[in-house]
Amino acid sequence: MSVDSDPASAPSPAPPVSRCVVQKFGGSSVASAELIQRVARRIAATRAEHERVVVVVSAMGDSTDELLSLAHKVNSAPPPRELDQLLSTGETITAPLMAMALERLGVPAISLTGPQAGIRTSSVHRSARIVDIVPERIVDELDHGRVVVVAGFQGVSDALDVTTLGRGGSDTTAVALAVELGAARCEIFTDVAGVYTADPRVEPRARPLPEITYGEMLEFAAVGAKVLHPRAVEIGETYSVPIVVRSTFEDHPGTLICQHPAMEDRLKIRGIAHHSGVAKVILTRVPDRPGVAAQVFGPIGKAGINVDIIVQNVSHDGFTDISFIIAEEDLPRSRPVLEEVARDVRAEQVVAATDIATVSVVGTALLGTPGMAARIFQALSAKNINVEQITTSQIHVTVVIARDRVAEAVRALHDEFELESD
Amino acid sequence: MSVDSDPASAPSPAPPVSRCVVQKFGGSSVASAELIQRVARRIAATRAEHERVVVVVSAMGDSTDELLSLAHKVNSAPPPRELDQLLSTGETITAPLMAMALERLGVPAISLTGPQAGIRTSSVHRSARIVDIVPERIVDELDHGRVVVVAGFQGVSDALDVTTLGRGGSDTTAVALAVELGAARCEIFTDVAGVYTADPRVEPRARPLPEITYGEMLEFAAVGAKVLHPRAVEIGETYSVPIVVRSTFEDHPGTLICQHPAMEDRLKIRGIAHHSGVAKVILTRVPDRPGVAAQVFGPIGKAGINVDIIVQNVSHDGFTDISFIIAEEDLPRSRPVLEEVARDVRAEQVVAATDIATVSVVGTALLGTPGMAARIFQALSAKNINVEQITTSQIHVTVVIARDRVAEAVRALHDEFELESD
Repeated sequence: MSVDSDPASAPSPAPPVSRCVVQKFGGSSVASAELIQRVARRIAATRAEHERVVVVVSAMGDSTDELLSLAHKVNSAPPPRELDQLLSTGETITAPLMAMALERLGVPAISLTGPQAGIRTSSVHRSARIVDIVPERIVDELDHGRVVVVAGFQGVSDALDVTTLGRGGSDTTAVALAVELGAARCEIFTDVAGVYTADPRVEPRARPLPEITYGEMLEFAAVGAKVLHPRAVEIGETYSVPIVVRSTFEDHPGTLICQHPAMEDRLKIRGIAHHSGVAKVILTRVPDRPGVAAQVFGPIGKAGINVDIIVQNVSHDGFTDISFIIAEEDLPRSRPVLEEVARDVRAEQVVAATDIATVSVVGTALLGTPGMAARIFQALSAKNINVEQITTSQIHVTVVIARDRVAEAVRALHDEFELESD
Repeated sequence: MSVDSDPASAPSPAPPVSRCVVQKFGGSSVASAELIQRVARRIAATRAEHERVVVVVSAMGDSTDELLSLAHKVNSAPPPRELDQLLSTGETITAPLMAMALERLGVPAISLTGPQAGIRTSSVHRSARIVDIVPERIVDELDHGRVVVVAGFQGVSDALDVTTLGRGGSDTTAVALAVELGAARCEIFTDVAGVYTADPRVEPRARPLPEITYGEMLEFAAVGAKVLHPRAVEIGETYSVPIVVRSTFEDHPGTLICQHPAMEDRLKIRGIAHHSGVAKVILTRVPDRPGVAAQVFGPIGKAGINVDIIVQNVSHDGFTDISFIIAEEDLPRSRPVLEEVARDVRAEQVVAATDIATVSVVGTALLGTPGMAARIFQALSAKNINVEQITTSQIHVTVVIARDRVAEAVRALHDEFELESD
């Protein structure tokens, strides 16, 4: 159009296609026919306000565990490809049930499996990564006015085999779809009202945060808050998709996870996370020489065991103790690896303790604020809680303490940083 | 190779690729982890004798009914496409479990869904027809020495939607795969030792037949023997694939269904079938005029309701009664259609009776042997069993009698034709 043409006679631009909303509902939100109907009413309300709605669902309740137990009955070490064929049915069952419930409410809907939704993944069964999303089918169904219900946690490899995305898989499906579709936001529905300042079962005065940054959410997720998987947060951060964590059954706005929260919310302590399901491993009297850490942590990493809070004591008489934290559930399969590592590095012995827990203070206020660590130690020592180990990042301080003092520690720190008030 | 070359120096011909065997296991054969392991041992024994084995499995026990009931909880009239997405998961669960159980026994195996197995169907959800099988993936896996376990009952439409094949779907999958792969035979494993001369729960002296023709099997299946679906028999007949019906848990050779049974087995009465799940419908005082039958049976056929044994009385005073048999389970959804038909043809009323049953004598001996019908009537009248209606084909005679006399009738006819002896 030439600049001098009459604006009044120019065709008015096509109205912008409204951006879609992605909503993800976890297993506890869809655990029964009744709950599915309840969730469908919630989706119908969203559909009344937004033209384009994509829903991602998890498997019903603990149906994945039931399938897993069936698999282990016929084969104690089931091949991962077959396990993926089996486990993916959990989400594949929920999706059509949700579409049926929506149709029942007069909302046009269609369910798609991960492969039908065009979710292409690597071929690493049980922990596949999404490599691409081919969104044509979803877009076509949205264009026809249908709510699209996608089975989470699953995709398809180049060999046309079904893959599953591992822990946090449905969260990852939801955020990845939100990125691909250019969604206005991705809403993660769960059984709590958002990301809390502390676990409300431990600290009754804990409250949901209105907003936090991706970085803070990553720290929360990494140190034990189970509300959203770190993988999903990372994708959201990379592509700047706003994520909202909110309650399925309460009408609460939830917590918005985004790049730049409101100015007044910056540089604050955001909350206290804790994690009791951890174990401390100590390799004692390791001959201290260059490269010994690599010799220890190489094989452990290869075995797929995540390690946190590594402490290597200052060497005396040529020997050192190396200790670190792992998930308690990883302890059984770590044992043989650890015994071999201990032999290789000529450690005296391997000691594992499970009477410990971690407590973390999270928030951008920790960025270059050295006084924070001191306040944490003071608050805990005032309660006679001993800090065994400590680790810090730019936005968290984590301490290792006795497991039976966790609740006290969480409440003491929640108090210290006045998190009960906004 | 020229005819005069030295045979000793000629290269020996490549060994022929061994033909594969297709084995199908129904829901009651795979109802638990223990049964799946038992079936896996049976497959492993077959694999020890045959290089190429394809297995088709149904959903575990009554899991399909459970999924159906879940669907009806969220939507009393679930959309057929969504129902197919849902119900197909039943078979999709069994297949990887069977592959895992085989791997546990050291037998390399892989599971494929219907879509992965290349089973292309029409897009009529809930009763799709197989239009093509693209066997590349199956052949490739067989070439790699794997037992291929295919989820029965399902396929994929041109729109890449999952479809299900309706009643007898897994039998149909198995026979169609046997045709496409040029299998030596298709074995249908079930909870009985083969096709019996009568239902052994009704006539304890009934015995499994060693061989019958496709035509006889079709008659058995059409008149109530549930051991194998007529669709599967028809495909087997069209492509001359031998089908064996045999027991999963007994080591019995079963019944071979083929084109030409052994000479001595021809022109015999093969067995007695019965069906109690039927209803008789009567349209009374229908004004008799040309075309009235088409007016009655056109709409009923369009509604997908199968009709059998039509009887139209000789007209007197210009009115006639039209009666026919339908499946009792079709009665509820037939009602509105029948009421409309009755209005259209100005019938006096629609009467339905469910206190009836059908009993059929099956065998090629009936071909052009008019005396047979007389023997049937005599045997029944000797027991004071009244024959309400009768229909015949080339290889069956079916009578309609009171439902509470079925067991007596089956035993009387089994006696009359001396079916207990070979």
